[in-house]
Amino acid sequence: MSTARNDLVLFSPSGIVARAAPVRKAARRLKAMGFDVRVDEAALLKQQRFAGDDDTRLAALHRIAGEAPAVALATRGGYGLSRLLDRLDWKAMQRSVEQGTAWVGYSDMTALHLAALAHGAAGAAQPGEGVRAGLWAGPMACDDFGRDDSDLGGDDVTQDTFSEAMSGELEAVGFRTEAGFDGLETSGRLWGGNLAIVQALLGTPHFPRVRGGVLFLEDVNEHPYRIERALLQLHQAGVLAQQKAIVLGAFTEYRKSPLDRGYNLKTVIAHLRSVCPAPILTGLPFGHVPVKVCLPVGRKVNLMVQGRDAFILW
Amino acid sequence: MSTARNDLVLFSPSGIVARAAPVRKAARRLKAMGFDVRVDEAALLKQQRFAGDDDTRLAALHRIAGEAPAVALATRGGYGLSRLLDRLDWKAMQRSVEQGTAWVGYSDMTALHLAALAHGAAGAAQPGEGVRAGLWAGPMACDDFGRDDSDLGGDDVTQDTFSEAMSGELEAVGFRTEAGFDGLETSGRLWGGNLAIVQALLGTPHFPRVRGGVLFLEDVNEHPYRIERALLQLHQAGVLAQQKAIVLGAFTEYRKSPLDRGYNLKTVIAHLRSVCPAPILTGLPFGHVPVKVCLPVGRKVNLMVQGRDAFILW
Repeated sequence: MSTARNDLVLFSPSGIVARAAPVRKAARRLKAMGFDVRVDEAALLKQQRFAGDDDTRLAALHRIAGEAPAVALATRGGYGLSRLLDRLDWKAMQRSVEQGTAWVGYSDMTALHLAALAHGAAGAAQPGEGVRAGLWAGPMACDDFGRDDSDLGGDDVTQDTFSEAMSGELEAVGFRTEAGFDGLETSGRLWGGNLAIVQALLGTPHFPRVRGGVLFLEDVNEHPYRIERALLQLHQAGVLAQQKAIVLGAFTEYRKSPLDRGYNLKTVIAHLRSVCPAPILTGLPFGHVPVKVCLPVGRKVNLMVQGRDAFILW
Repeated sequence: MSTARNDLVLFSPSGIVARAAPVRKAARRLKAMGFDVRVDEAALLKQQRFAGDDDTRLAALHRIAGEAPAVALATRGGYGLSRLLDRLDWKAMQRSVEQGTAWVGYSDMTALHLAALAHGAAGAAQPGEGVRAGLWAGPMACDDFGRDDSDLGGDDVTQDTFSEAMSGELEAVGFRTEAGFDGLETSGRLWGGNLAIVQALLGTPHFPRVRGGVLFLEDVNEHPYRIERALLQLHQAGVLAQQKAIVLGAFTEYRKSPLDRGYNLKTVIAHLRSVCPAPILTGLPFGHVPVKVCLPVGRKVNLMVQGRDAFILW
């Protein structure tokens, strides 16, 4: 760790943690990576399908914002942040970011990230500043550090990227994209996350109005027609055309239908490209998949493509 | 039939009709009910998961609007209207309604109904006028008139209500609701339909801005947390609080999760009632269920509750 502080709090803003073992495993793994790990007192609570009732989860978010640890890492996603957005103290979130906190996660955490962006609580880091503070679309404890399927408890690339990001050293991510975008070079505010959550914020005060941005999206368990419907909604709402680029991550684990007859993710993207003027890139290593990078939500980034190699730099 | 015209066109604006048999059965049944039935030339086309490509389905809608039959009844839903909304000729839709056409269906047809309402193509019928013309949330050919499971090919209540609505005689629907709303009496524009479609229109130019309305909603294959998330979005967007009442139909065919632990449709509605000031009624016989009433979308209605008996009158 190149920064002085390395305290990391695991918290549960959304769904219940069914078993404590993956959290304990993640805590061990993160300690081995050099973090001073603490599990928030409410992280393992259970109320219906939530990690504690709304008041409890809200209090946990405010408590952690007050403590302003170096890293606030969600244990998992699920559903739950939508219930808290109207009641969250965005000034407290903003202060935690100013004091250096990185809020990290994906899936349901998209709601926290984008609402924070909408309410001006994303920090104000500029390109070139090697800071950790802010909103990071990135791994989560149970999914990426708490699995049983390897000694490391997760994917190496994911963990290394997270480690770099949390030390303030990560300055870019690269990925292989489709042919046809060679020479593309643009810049804008990076934002996005889980498509269903982006969709579920549209039209509300928690949806950030980012113009000229770079929008990244991923989703899980959604049939391509539902992915298309959500993307078409963003298009019809004027959101897609306002972006410099759309960058698609992984869309996984959906079930095909015998009625599809050749309709698939590829035809969805082709249709979107036929109606949306902004370039739509694919291949971002992000989503409900083991290999995921860290992406600074709200940061100004440069997007460059050389041949089929794409880079997002900040 | 009390009206002079009784021509009915079956058309497919969305998903493919996998088998022609239910359409033929529905046509026979509707003929037996007194309609002069015609199957649109494109109704049985297939392109990927759609009933013909976008241009073909759009041309079918414009062709039928030009013909202005007494009844334009969708064969089925699925997905597809979202792709056409930006290109639909709403003036042509409006003219067809002025010439007496009733556009009938549910599920994906919600997109046509609500976008027509948003673009001023819903007609201008007032309470008390016994007219058929306009937008009707109601049955569809394959689902409600084309099934094999009875000699009649569908549910009696559904067919009788449809018959009454299409003759201009239907003036109200009644249903059994929960206790706690006795004496409720309000009025407003009736609108709504499939929740996922209502959600997918939000923030776009195709979303009708109805204030002081009566909003009805149904859905299928959506877990209660997704229903809650969509309803919370409508709430956070200010839509629910602007309504005189929300009336919930059937929410069916979702799969529970072992993580729910007591979280269900009932707790969803309780949560919604705790944040939304508008009365939220349940029990409307409408949705992806055999027994469904016809509801005039865009019409001014009165909503009354006596004991547990609720009535929507126009």
